[in-house]
Amino acid sequence: MKIDADRLLSDLHRLREFGKEGSGVVRPAFSGPDIAAREWLAEKMREAELEPNFDPAGNLFGLPSVDEPCLLMGSHSDSQPEGGWLDGAYGVIAALEVSRAARGKVPVAVVSFQDEEGRFGALTGSNVWSGGIKLETADKLTALSGETFAEARARMVHLVRDDFVEAERFSGFIEAHIEQGPWLDKAGEAVAVVESIVGVGRMQVTYQGEQNHAGTTPMIYRRDAFQGLAEFNQRLNAALVPVVTESTVWTIGHVEISPGAPSIVPGRAVFSVQWRDSDPERLELMAKIVVETAEAVAAERGLVCTLEPGIPVAPRQFDERLCTALATAAERKAPKRWRRMTSGAMHDATNVARVMPSAMLFVPSIAGISHSFEEDTAEADLVTGAEVLLEAVGQIGLN
Amino acid sequence: MKIDADRLLSDLHRLREFGKEGSGVVRPAFSGPDIAAREWLAEKMREAELEPNFDPAGNLFGLPSVDEPCLLMGSHSDSQPEGGWLDGAYGVIAALEVSRAARGKVPVAVVSFQDEEGRFGALTGSNVWSGGIKLETADKLTALSGETFAEARARMVHLVRDDFVEAERFSGFIEAHIEQGPWLDKAGEAVAVVESIVGVGRMQVTYQGEQNHAGTTPMIYRRDAFQGLAEFNQRLNAALVPVVTESTVWTIGHVEISPGAPSIVPGRAVFSVQWRDSDPERLELMAKIVVETAEAVAAERGLVCTLEPGIPVAPRQFDERLCTALATAAERKAPKRWRRMTSGAMHDATNVARVMPSAMLFVPSIAGISHSFEEDTAEADLVTGAEVLLEAVGQIGLN
Repeated sequence: MKIDADRLLSDLHRLREFGKEGSGVVRPAFSGPDIAAREWLAEKMREAELEPNFDPAGNLFGLPSVDEPCLLMGSHSDSQPEGGWLDGAYGVIAALEVSRAARGKVPVAVVSFQDEEGRFGALTGSNVWSGGIKLETADKLTALSGETFAEARARMVHLVRDDFVEAERFSGFIEAHIEQGPWLDKAGEAVAVVESIVGVGRMQVTYQGEQNHAGTTPMIYRRDAFQGLAEFNQRLNAALVPVVTESTVWTIGHVEISPGAPSIVPGRAVFSVQWRDSDPERLELMAKIVVETAEAVAAERGLVCTLEPGIPVAPRQFDERLCTALATAAERKAPKRWRRMTSGAMHDATNVARVMPSAMLFVPSIAGISHSFEEDTAEADLVTGAEVLLEAVGQIGLN
Repeated sequence: MKIDADRLLSDLHRLREFGKEGSGVVRPAFSGPDIAAREWLAEKMREAELEPNFDPAGNLFGLPSVDEPCLLMGSHSDSQPEGGWLDGAYGVIAALEVSRAARGKVPVAVVSFQDEEGRFGALTGSNVWSGGIKLETADKLTALSGETFAEARARMVHLVRDDFVEAERFSGFIEAHIEQGPWLDKAGEAVAVVESIVGVGRMQVTYQGEQNHAGTTPMIYRRDAFQGLAEFNQRLNAALVPVVTESTVWTIGHVEISPGAPSIVPGRAVFSVQWRDSDPERLELMAKIVVETAEAVAAERGLVCTLEPGIPVAPRQFDERLCTALATAAERKAPKRWRRMTSGAMHDATNVARVMPSAMLFVPSIAGISHSFEEDTAEADLVTGAEVLLEAVGQIGLN
């Protein structure tokens, strides 16, 4: 069994064409480029003798014709609003290549989950598929554009032949992914075996103040929603310092200030707060601090505060047998150039681990950059990653 | 000479229909509703025996047929993106009513300046007309939508018959306006004679950091543009405290965070800073503090800082003879229920004062609210304002 490096890289570059924008991709879930990319993937699956199967949530499975449960590998092919070319895409194409390379020896199913990047909620496709959320509940999730998940998935309904693929068809799940952080690149290492994933808490905060004239409203009478946000941010940072570790992260990434004119005191601020840690207790404590800080600032400044908690994701431990297989394969294919680590990013494997043994493999991200057009990985590392996967598949499947 | 209160209010409500949105108006400069409103105004001028004249900047003058220089009155009929129904509109319709009431005794020309609300720069129409900025320079000013002033005014070019009306046709300018602040309403007063207008400084700041994954980028490696903005805001507030008076104001009203997703560390923040004061030295000192603070925060956080200063407006003293006439009229029509004050808002009179004696009259804003759909003024105050104007016109014109 041998990885065809040219075929792997050529398919990766072909997938990059869907929604290509400079060196990155704009291929958000259910967009035209996303659906076109999935139709192309289905065709590649067919060529690899995998039966393509779109499910009602927009997930695409490629199924080998076998009677026994087989390994499932893959990731997602939707992107961030301004995404890199490898985020998700690498795991899907690496899985396809491993399935082709192992064909006839070890059957490997391939999947591209839908809306991993969370236009609607978070990791929506794998969450629905693994029973984390009901389809009817997901249908009410709304993107920032105002579109619901139900409306979005209706655009793919013509591709669905069957219902959801049953989890019982698979014996385990391995997801390859770019690290999206700096550690492998800084250390010059080729791969990482991911033993666990941090949990995520999230909150959307709305501060409603009073929109008014920026020249005639004295500072002491203002109820400025942007000032509320800026102070919330500073106080949250200060309140979290004694609570966090060096791997804890938190982010205010989405901010809308209304009406948004230089001469008007902002009447409304809507913003996201997101925090990640591997310790469930710390996640809960952080949630409490977010809520208390948001409400305290609002009360002091005469703002009306509305809090809309997002669906939290619990930290996840991966399957030790699969991790050991990946570690053994890593030591063979990249001796002394690999590590075990925790993932700071959410991945579909977090959800899939609910229903079967799961694990992940990381390849390096140059300078740790991801969720950005600049995201990239050295070709040699992309190939080594696939070789490690195939080596692990050999061990797992032939044992 | 007598104000027709019903005619005044009915015309005000008719003008409100153009771009009406709830209780407010959406009638930004050169929008469809703005141009339609100006065409309606031209018709009302004709009915009042005023010759309508659109100039190349989109300003609309109504000219009585007289040989000697006459008084000019008016304001603007364009609105903020989400504007109140009286901001500008009151001054235009009050001028129209005064011109009608004084007809045959004192000739009064009427004007509605264009883009007072600064889609392109600031007070653009009156600035061009009074020689503060050349038309060719204004043509390059760009709205947040990306449209230039040249492109916008091309939509009104079919209405222009002549060139700019000459300032020498007018002996002085009086602009009536809602106060847009809380002072008259809090004191239960009917009008204010405006002796001066504060100056305005403005800056657009861009912080370019590094867009990255919000789960995998450790806090210490982030170059988060939103965090830069939040810290700039807090440090600016602290730095201004020892410098300002209780009437000084400053505002961050326009904020854009890119790419704007909850799971991405913001790579870019673009925001406006605006400050107002009646003391030219304080305005300059504030400008220096804005620049130093923006650059210091950027340097400390590894952000690239780009500063684009907006066109500053100098503080302006109004004509004492016109102010005295307004004060005498105010004491007659609203005895002990008026004051002299400084305006915290910019007005077209700031520009017109360059080329002729000018003054302003304020009527109250309920709860001080303006630049908002909730903006309103008691009908009795709207009528009293017009009566004070007419009384002053009588004194000035008949002396």
